[in-house]
Amino acid sequence: MDLVKKHIIKNNTKLLLIVLDGLGGLPVENGKTELEMAKTPNLDRLAKESALGMHIPVDYGITPGSGPGHLGIFGYNPVEYQIGRGILEALGLGLELKDTDIAVRGNYATVEEFNGKLIVKDRRAGRISSEENKRITQKLASAVKNIGDVQVILSPGMEHRFAMILRFPTPLPEGSDRLPDTDPQKEGYEPIIPQGDGVAMVVREFLKRAQEVLKDEPKANYVLLRGFSQKPKIESFEEKFGLRACAIAVYPMYRGLASLVGMEVFKAESLQEQIKLLKDLWENYDYFFFHIKKTDSYGEDGNWRGKIQVIEEFDGLIPEFLSLKPQVLVITGDHSTPSVLKGHSWHPVPVLLHSPYVLGRTSERFTERECLKGELGIFPAFKLMNLMLAHSLRLSKFGA
Amino acid sequence: MDLVKKHIIKNNTKLLLIVLDGLGGLPVENGKTELEMAKTPNLDRLAKESALGMHIPVDYGITPGSGPGHLGIFGYNPVEYQIGRGILEALGLGLELKDTDIAVRGNYATVEEFNGKLIVKDRRAGRISSEENKRITQKLASAVKNIGDVQVILSPGMEHRFAMILRFPTPLPEGSDRLPDTDPQKEGYEPIIPQGDGVAMVVREFLKRAQEVLKDEPKANYVLLRGFSQKPKIESFEEKFGLRACAIAVYPMYRGLASLVGMEVFKAESLQEQIKLLKDLWENYDYFFFHIKKTDSYGEDGNWRGKIQVIEEFDGLIPEFLSLKPQVLVITGDHSTPSVLKGHSWHPVPVLLHSPYVLGRTSERFTERECLKGELGIFPAFKLMNLMLAHSLRLSKFGA
Repeated sequence: MDLVKKHIIKNNTKLLLIVLDGLGGLPVENGKTELEMAKTPNLDRLAKESALGMHIPVDYGITPGSGPGHLGIFGYNPVEYQIGRGILEALGLGLELKDTDIAVRGNYATVEEFNGKLIVKDRRAGRISSEENKRITQKLASAVKNIGDVQVILSPGMEHRFAMILRFPTPLPEGSDRLPDTDPQKEGYEPIIPQGDGVAMVVREFLKRAQEVLKDEPKANYVLLRGFSQKPKIESFEEKFGLRACAIAVYPMYRGLASLVGMEVFKAESLQEQIKLLKDLWENYDYFFFHIKKTDSYGEDGNWRGKIQVIEEFDGLIPEFLSLKPQVLVITGDHSTPSVLKGHSWHPVPVLLHSPYVLGRTSERFTERECLKGELGIFPAFKLMNLMLAHSLRLSKFGA
Repeated sequence: MDLVKKHIIKNNTKLLLIVLDGLGGLPVENGKTELEMAKTPNLDRLAKESALGMHIPVDYGITPGSGPGHLGIFGYNPVEYQIGRGILEALGLGLELKDTDIAVRGNYATVEEFNGKLIVKDRRAGRISSEENKRITQKLASAVKNIGDVQVILSPGMEHRFAMILRFPTPLPEGSDRLPDTDPQKEGYEPIIPQGDGVAMVVREFLKRAQEVLKDEPKANYVLLRGFSQKPKIESFEEKFGLRACAIAVYPMYRGLASLVGMEVFKAESLQEQIKLLKDLWENYDYFFFHIKKTDSYGEDGNWRGKIQVIEEFDGLIPEFLSLKPQVLVITGDHSTPSVLKGHSWHPVPVLLHSPYVLGRTSERFTERECLKGELGIFPAFKLMNLMLAHSLRLSKFGA
């Protein structure tokens, strides 16, 4: 039984979720984390009168990718809903996905004929430049627009990477994406050619035509395909929580993740533009997902000074968010990206929930250690939506 | 696998659960909650040497009714065991329930014939007085004592409300309570008459006879029935936990909830009388559920001064409870009822567990914020029984 769905009430409250990607950290200097070193007078003030806690994105010790990280804070148990690699790659490159699509991650590769066999010589085509990639992808895209009635959509990525969508004219049966990667994972081996009908046949034909188009390229003379995947079947955010939701993000990946759960997505070029959009859209939606990327990027680079700077810049914008008077404001991350680990991590993520219906005054600042003292405790990320709905008085009583 | 049941040990310890209904609160003045404002020297002393924590009654963000609230602290997952509306209404009005009963919530209503059809004109019969209700219920009860071999039991409630039990001579198959409400929910519509055999036939006959008996009433000339429900199948407290248990409560609802899990119930008219009963019964049981209602009532009224007064009055009685030397004493609520919300809420509820086998000295007082610092953390209400059993050394080791 879905306890939450059964008890949804609609009202006019506004819920704002601000995600500082990869927010949580570990000590970087003098035993202090990025959040602890940052000067954040506005967050400090807010923290004193908010409910604080930490969320666990997926499970104890589990480091999430961006997909599960966001599904969790959107209220979906990320273990139940999994997003295929191809889908994620396509979203990251800004491709829109339809229910009849198969999405794939592609690599340009170098192959050689050897005793009549095709052998992978370089799985990354010498890591060609992103510029070179653009040229080659354009060439391939204009030569192979479709395979029969299947539309082929290509988008260049960084270096040797690209995303491909095979858009079928009609819905595919579930499991149509269960195709092995064509990438043999090791050089000196043959690519793995999928066998059988349906999607496999389309893929075989695509490979044949790509080989023909790319045959004169010095490096990128072949493609390897991985992570065949269909758009996951996910109950929409509005169905599940009764909220008209939108996402405001600079990076395509996060708009894409929001669109997977049915949020309407809006693109901005900068944090300032995002805030302007937020204000413009304020009357049109109930729930706003506001994504800030750079905390994660600097964390990934191990650049803790950069991460601190993004946090401080965000702190300066807090009055702008508060001026909208959201009934529930949550500030958190989708996962931790400690600068010392130069990558995502499993550590719980600080959460701040601002609402009139909290205890507050448990903590002095919005930091990992201060959030541990908070009234929300350490809780699974996918329960965050329960809390946001409750604090906006959008859940009726369970049982008499 | 039921870990607890498999490891039950019997001994002579006494376990006392004191429930201050709707105990948890939110800041009401100067940022302080009702518990924080109350002068509670005895609770303060006890808190310093007890294990403290917070329980979540049902789930994050879920506001429980009295039924789920109590099932949780009795050690039953309230999501697994749901109590029908009719059952709860009957318990609240002090009716005893048998396994062969169908319980229903009733409203007196005003109907009119219109083109040969019965139309609901007022779903609440103009909110007749409770006095008027008593008279009408008596009249109906003496006219309709049974339908065939099914006994009809009626009990008047407040204003237009009443509870009815249809007591069948033999057990009913599960799902016999799956009848639609006869209340059309809107005025100007016909009542919904249940179709089919069995319980539906009895209900149809009751409706016909009630209409006949009430036909000359100016307002309450019909009845609408809602929330048909059977007594839930719940493993008894003694089977589940190996404890002979009793409940001491002033209000019928809470005795009723305790009786649903098989506790013996004792009625008192006041807190003083409850304490006398507790002392008298002390040798006869292992587990005592002691219910104090007024914290919730004042919370529901938004009367935080009243709530504080009840807490302070209770504090004065702590020495009486301690004089009995229970091996495990728990003081908590079934849910929070913050005065500022004038109703039940989803907020975690303070828990104090007194036993020789605790750390203690984590906190200065028994308040929401001080309980957050405690050794029990934030935990699901239905795990409270595990903790009470463990601290009474009534659970053997799991595994070798």
